[in-house]
Amino acid sequence: MNSSPHRIPTAGVIIIGNEILSGRIQDQNLGYISAKLGEYGVQVVEAKFIADVEASIIKTVKEYADCYDYVFTTGGLGPTHDDITAASIAKAFNAPLETNETALRSIEIRCGKIDENSNSTIMAEFPKGSTLIPEPISGAPGFKIGNVHVMAGIPQIMRSMFDHVLLSIQRGSPISSQTICCFLNEGIIAKKLSTIQMKYPEVDIGSYPFWTQGTFGASIVVRGTDNSIITRAIEDVSEMVKELGGNPIMEAA
Amino acid sequence: MNSSPHRIPTAGVIIIGNEILSGRIQDQNLGYISAKLGEYGVQVVEAKFIADVEASIIKTVKEYADCYDYVFTTGGLGPTHDDITAASIAKAFNAPLETNETALRSIEIRCGKIDENSNSTIMAEFPKGSTLIPEPISGAPGFKIGNVHVMAGIPQIMRSMFDHVLLSIQRGSPISSQTICCFLNEGIIAKKLSTIQMKYPEVDIGSYPFWTQGTFGASIVVRGTDNSIITRAIEDVSEMVKELGGNPIMEAA
Repeated sequence: MNSSPHRIPTAGVIIIGNEILSGRIQDQNLGYISAKLGEYGVQVVEAKFIADVEASIIKTVKEYADCYDYVFTTGGLGPTHDDITAASIAKAFNAPLETNETALRSIEIRCGKIDENSNSTIMAEFPKGSTLIPEPISGAPGFKIGNVHVMAGIPQIMRSMFDHVLLSIQRGSPISSQTICCFLNEGIIAKKLSTIQMKYPEVDIGSYPFWTQGTFGASIVVRGTDNSIITRAIEDVSEMVKELGGNPIMEAA
Repeated sequence: MNSSPHRIPTAGVIIIGNEILSGRIQDQNLGYISAKLGEYGVQVVEAKFIADVEASIIKTVKEYADCYDYVFTTGGLGPTHDDITAASIAKAFNAPLETNETALRSIEIRCGKIDENSNSTIMAEFPKGSTLIPEPISGAPGFKIGNVHVMAGIPQIMRSMFDHVLLSIQRGSPISSQTICCFLNEGIIAKKLSTIQMKYPEVDIGSYPFWTQGTFGASIVVRGTDNSIITRAIEDVSEMVKELGGNPIMEAA
């Protein structure tokens, strides 16, 4: 998948769920996935938040599976009528749904014997060709098909699945960063900061403004895979802040 | 734009910024925008998180401007080298950038006279044909071009801009919801809940599982534009929970 040793592996994240698009609940999964993937040297290039709508799931999964090395989805794996992720991804891969006996037993161990009033068997149906992502809390696994990793939406359960998935991720060079905060207006630092970015093309320098207690400031983040270059660039940033009359505050990593 | 009185106006949201995709900071804007638009009867259909990359911004803005009644972007409006939103959206609309004198004065009033060391003038450059979205905190406005509303990324400033934008939004029927929580496993409620959804096709019934203190439960949300139907459906949900041996807890609106 990643033939060049210098190419950074890429990922796309799909957050599925009406409740997030309606603003009823705040997503907590994208940040967790992105930060962890960064530690593993995998870059999240794009994320999409979509509703529990079959056509949207199929279209987005196909697009991301073609574009990125890894795709991660969260949400829509439960047994209720609005949980359509597994069935939609089966359609995206033209794979029929099959009941997995291992998953069925795992769900019964956690939730008790499934009788005719329960819909829990649906959580043991996966597209043919999937491998399971174990989940010890609920007993209901996620699954992987192709490069697409399909996980639950509940943050604690998603994290448990994702931490398992990470074991099989092909690592890139870890992406690390150093940050300096200062209470200077971005307009003041912009020109000199641009010069530092041009001096160190191997790193990405971002300036993220904030507004706190009536004052503007900026967090300047140097991000890359070579720690010695990051350190040199951040020293230049620190000097620049001092020259402009500010006080560079190194943020703890 | 919204010729049928029954069609719900739609929106797409574009969250722009490397810092969010890297997991360094958690987005706070999508939830605010979505919840407020819901109150105004506008439905967020999709949201995309993209990096500060010109091609991504142009592609996503064009796609969303064609697909949705309203498009909202956040992030990338500052004066540093990584702030490329305004220039990219100008390209998406084939419109040259022009310096707006009103914006320039507004920035100078808040930030002081702009001299040759400052890059703040760039924050007064907008695509030709834009109208400004005023911003009292920083003095640096956002802008609207076509159906695309371009706002800052800092949450306090974004909210100030967005609240101004809302004044000119064409309202749909307000989308409201009622919620019942219970400590029943979703597998138990799924079949009966599906029957209630079929009985009330005018509303969307969602079941959102949670896991707290070692126990699974579900929040069942009935969402729609007709409060009398929402109330009838939620009464059915409450009865269902009791029949299944649970205790329906009505969540405060």
